[in-house]
Amino acid sequence: MTGALDKLAAVAAGELEAADWLEACIARIEATDGKVNAFTGRTFERARREAAAIDARRARGGALPPLAGLPYAVKNLFDIEGLTTLAGSKVNRTHAPASADAVLVQRLREAGAVLVGALNMDEYAYGFTTENTHYGPAHNPHDPTRIAGGSSGGSGAALAAGQVPATLGSDTNGSIRVPASLCGVWGLKPTFGRLSRRGTYPFVHSIDHLGPFADSAGLLARVYDALQYPDARDPGCHALAIQPAAARAAQGVQGLRIGVLGGYFHDNASEPAREAVRAAAQALGAAAPPVEWPDALLGRISAFIITAAEGGSLHLEDLRARADDFEPLSVDRFIAGALQPAHWVARAQRFRRLYRDRVNALFQDWDILLAPATPFAAPAIGTEWVEIGGARVPSRASVGMLTQPISFAGCPVVAAPCWPAGTGGLPIGVQVIAAPWREDLALAAAAALEAAGVSHLKPVTF
Amino acid sequence: MTGALDKLAAVAAGELEAADWLEACIARIEATDGKVNAFTGRTFERARREAAAIDARRARGGALPPLAGLPYAVKNLFDIEGLTTLAGSKVNRTHAPASADAVLVQRLREAGAVLVGALNMDEYAYGFTTENTHYGPAHNPHDPTRIAGGSSGGSGAALAAGQVPATLGSDTNGSIRVPASLCGVWGLKPTFGRLSRRGTYPFVHSIDHLGPFADSAGLLARVYDALQYPDARDPGCHALAIQPAAARAAQGVQGLRIGVLGGYFHDNASEPAREAVRAAAQALGAAAPPVEWPDALLGRISAFIITAAEGGSLHLEDLRARADDFEPLSVDRFIAGALQPAHWVARAQRFRRLYRDRVNALFQDWDILLAPATPFAAPAIGTEWVEIGGARVPSRASVGMLTQPISFAGCPVVAAPCWPAGTGGLPIGVQVIAAPWREDLALAAAAALEAAGVSHLKPVTF
Repeated sequence: MTGALDKLAAVAAGELEAADWLEACIARIEATDGKVNAFTGRTFERARREAAAIDARRARGGALPPLAGLPYAVKNLFDIEGLTTLAGSKVNRTHAPASADAVLVQRLREAGAVLVGALNMDEYAYGFTTENTHYGPAHNPHDPTRIAGGSSGGSGAALAAGQVPATLGSDTNGSIRVPASLCGVWGLKPTFGRLSRRGTYPFVHSIDHLGPFADSAGLLARVYDALQYPDARDPGCHALAIQPAAARAAQGVQGLRIGVLGGYFHDNASEPAREAVRAAAQALGAAAPPVEWPDALLGRISAFIITAAEGGSLHLEDLRARADDFEPLSVDRFIAGALQPAHWVARAQRFRRLYRDRVNALFQDWDILLAPATPFAAPAIGTEWVEIGGARVPSRASVGMLTQPISFAGCPVVAAPCWPAGTGGLPIGVQVIAAPWREDLALAAAAALEAAGVSHLKPVTF
Repeated sequence: MTGALDKLAAVAAGELEAADWLEACIARIEATDGKVNAFTGRTFERARREAAAIDARRARGGALPPLAGLPYAVKNLFDIEGLTTLAGSKVNRTHAPASADAVLVQRLREAGAVLVGALNMDEYAYGFTTENTHYGPAHNPHDPTRIAGGSSGGSGAALAAGQVPATLGSDTNGSIRVPASLCGVWGLKPTFGRLSRRGTYPFVHSIDHLGPFADSAGLLARVYDALQYPDARDPGCHALAIQPAAARAAQGVQGLRIGVLGGYFHDNASEPAREAVRAAAQALGAAAPPVEWPDALLGRISAFIITAAEGGSLHLEDLRARADDFEPLSVDRFIAGALQPAHWVARAQRFRRLYRDRVNALFQDWDILLAPATPFAAPAIGTEWVEIGGARVPSRASVGMLTQPISFAGCPVVAAPCWPAGTGGLPIGVQVIAAPWREDLALAAAAALEAAGVSHLKPVTF
C-alpha cells in the first residue's frame, strides 16, 4: 500500500485521477467489508461527484486544495447531508436525514477530500469495543475474530483494512485512541475545545472531542490542519486561532523534553504495552526516570461519573419509553448514570478543575509524555474478563483505562501504531501526549516516531 | 451626604486627607452598625495604614491611583489577609486565616482604595435575605425592621447606611441585585466569567459572579474598571482584555435600542416594581411594546437545580458530620440538593446552553433591557409568605425570582436604585441588562438614569 501522502502529491501533479483513487477504495471496500464490517452507510454517488469535480478542476488547470482527491469516511455520528445520523443506534433510525454536513465534513470537502461513507461505532459512542448488537461488531483487520476497539471502531478498522487512508472519529474517554491502538493506525485526539462539534451527535458535552485517523503521521497533521477552524457558533469550541501543525511537525523534536509515564500507566499495562512504550521512548531519546501523572485513577473515576450522568440524561426519555431498543451492552450503564446522586457529578466536576491545574503544572517540566494507549492488544470479540496487574477485571471497561485520565484533562494526544513482540503480530498504540493546545508538538513527536521506523501501518493479509 | 466621586476628586486635589475620610467612615460605622449589623469583621488598623500611605504619597507629590482614599468593605467571602473567611458560617470559624487578599481586593488596594472590613451575608451565600442565624440579620437602613436583601446583605446595607461609599459582593442568582434593590443603592453583576474569583469562598462554581456596589453610577463604573483584570490563573475567568467602561458610559445612550421586559417580569412584579420600571423606561426613552425574555421560568428552575446540586455537594462532608452547625434556613436545601438525581443537573446544564443561545439572539435586536430587580420592596425580617400575582408563595425564595433568570444567562446587569410610590418610602431597584461582555452599555444607561434624577441614593434618618 503506497501512502496517501504520495497519492495526494500524484493527484496534485496530474499523475493520478481522483476518480481512479476513489474507485480503488470503493473496490477495496466492496471486497473486504463483508469481513471487516466497518461501514454502516455508503456515499459512493456523492464521492464520485466530488472526485469528478476535483479532476475537472485539475483539467481546467485550476489550483487544487490541500487534500484534493483524498478518500475518507466518518464515524456515523457526523451529520452527512441526506443521511440519517444513526450514532450506532436503532432508536435513531426514525430520525429525519441530516439537512447539512457536520462542520468538520464541510471543512474536509472544502479541502478537496472525497467522502465515501459512514462508519460503525458503539451505540451512542458508549463503549470501547464496537461490539454493536444492531449493526454487528467491527472486526479487527489484523485478526477478524478480535475487536477493532471503540467507540470509533469503524474508523480504525476501515483504515487498517486499506479501505480509506483517512477517517474521522470522536473520543470522549478513548474512542479514537483505543481503535487506533488495536487496529495499528494513527489517530489524533485534539485538545478539548479545539475543533467545532456542530453537526455531530453528542454523547458527553463536557468531555466529547472529535479528531482524525490517518495512514501516516504526516497525513494526520495535514488532515488536522484542514479541520482547524475557530467556530464562534459552537460555544464548546474555544480555539481562538488556527495554529498550523504540519509546519511545526516538520521541524522535529530537537530540544523537546520528553518523558515516560510510570505508576498507573506502567502498573496497568501488559508487558507488550510496556515494550511498545520503551521502543518509542528510545527512538525519541526520552528521559529515563518515570514521570508521575497526578491522580490518574481519580481522573478515570470522575470521567466515568460525568460520562454516565450526561450520557444517561441525554437519552433518558428514550430509555424510559423503549429501553429494549438500546444496546444491551450499555443500556444499564445509561440508566444507572442518570440515577446517580447529583453530588457525585458536582464533586467530579470540582475535582476536574483541580486535576487540570495539576496536569497543566506537569507540562512546565515536560513537552511530551508517553504512555500505552491500551493495556493490551485486541481481545477476541465477546471477551468478558481480562487480567491486568494480577487482577481479573471487566474487559470492555478496561480497554480504555489508560486513555481516560488523559482526555479528562483535555490534553492533545496522538496514538502512534507500534508493533511490540509477544502479541502474535497485533499492534498496540503509544499515546504521545502534549500540553493543552500543543497538538503541534504531539504531531512533531509522532513524525519522529514514523521517521525512526518505530510507528507505521502494516498491510493486512486479506 | 456628598458623593464619593467628589471626595475622590478632593483627595486627588489635596483638599481632603484620606485619613479624615476614613475616620468619618469609621465613626459612622461605630455609630450605626449596632442597628444595621452590616459588619462581621473590621480592619480599621489596616485601613489606617492604607489611608496614611495615600496621604504620605500625596504629601511627597506623587501621582495618586484612581481610587485613592476610597473607603470600602467586602462581603465576608472575599479573602482578607490575616482574617478567617467566614462566608457567613459557623463551620468556617476554625479555618485558618487567609494568607493573602482575594484578587479583587488586591486590585482595589492597587487602585488606592482603603479596606475597612468584612460584611454580613447569608450562610455560604445561599439565601436572598441575610437573615443569618449565627451573626444576626442585616437590617435595612431605610427601615431596620425589614431585611436588607441577600446574600450580599451587608454590602447593600453598609452603603445605604452611609458607612462606606463602595462595597464588593457576589451574585449567583441575584445576591448583588437583590440587596441593591431593597437597600436603594447601585450594584453591578458583571458578565459571567468577567472578573477573577481567585481568593473568594465559592458557592456555585458554574454560576458565581463577583461585583461592586457604589453610591453613584459614576463610581460604580470607576470601581468596576479598577476590578477588570484578565486572570490566566483563574480558569473561570474568560475575559481576554480590559474593556474600559467609565469612558464609554460618559458617551450616553444616544442610539441604543432600549426595551422593557414583559411577560414573566411583569406578571411576577408588584405594582410599585412595575412603576419603578416605567419611570426608568420613560427616562431612557425605551420602546413601548414589551419584550419577551425566552424561557425565564425554565431558566430560574434550572438555576435552582444547579445551585442546590453544586452548593450541596461543596458542603456535603460537613453536612454529614455536623448538620446542626449549619444555618437552619438553608441546611435542608443543601442536603436535598446533593441528593437530586444526576439527570436533573445534566438536563439543567443542557438547557442552559440552549437558553444562552436564545438570550444572546435577543440582543441582536436590543442593547438594553429593563426589568424590576425584586418583585416588591423589602419585607419585614422573618416574613415567610408573600403574595405575587394573586398566588401565595414562599417569601425568601421569591425575592430573587426576577434576578435569577438573568444571571443564569450570564448577562451583565446594573441594579439602579428607584423610589416608586406605594412602598412607604422604600426603594425597589431596576435591572439594566445588557448583552454578555457589554457592561459598558449597562453602565451608560445607569449613568443616564442618574442624570435624569430617576435613580439615586437617599439618606437614612439615623
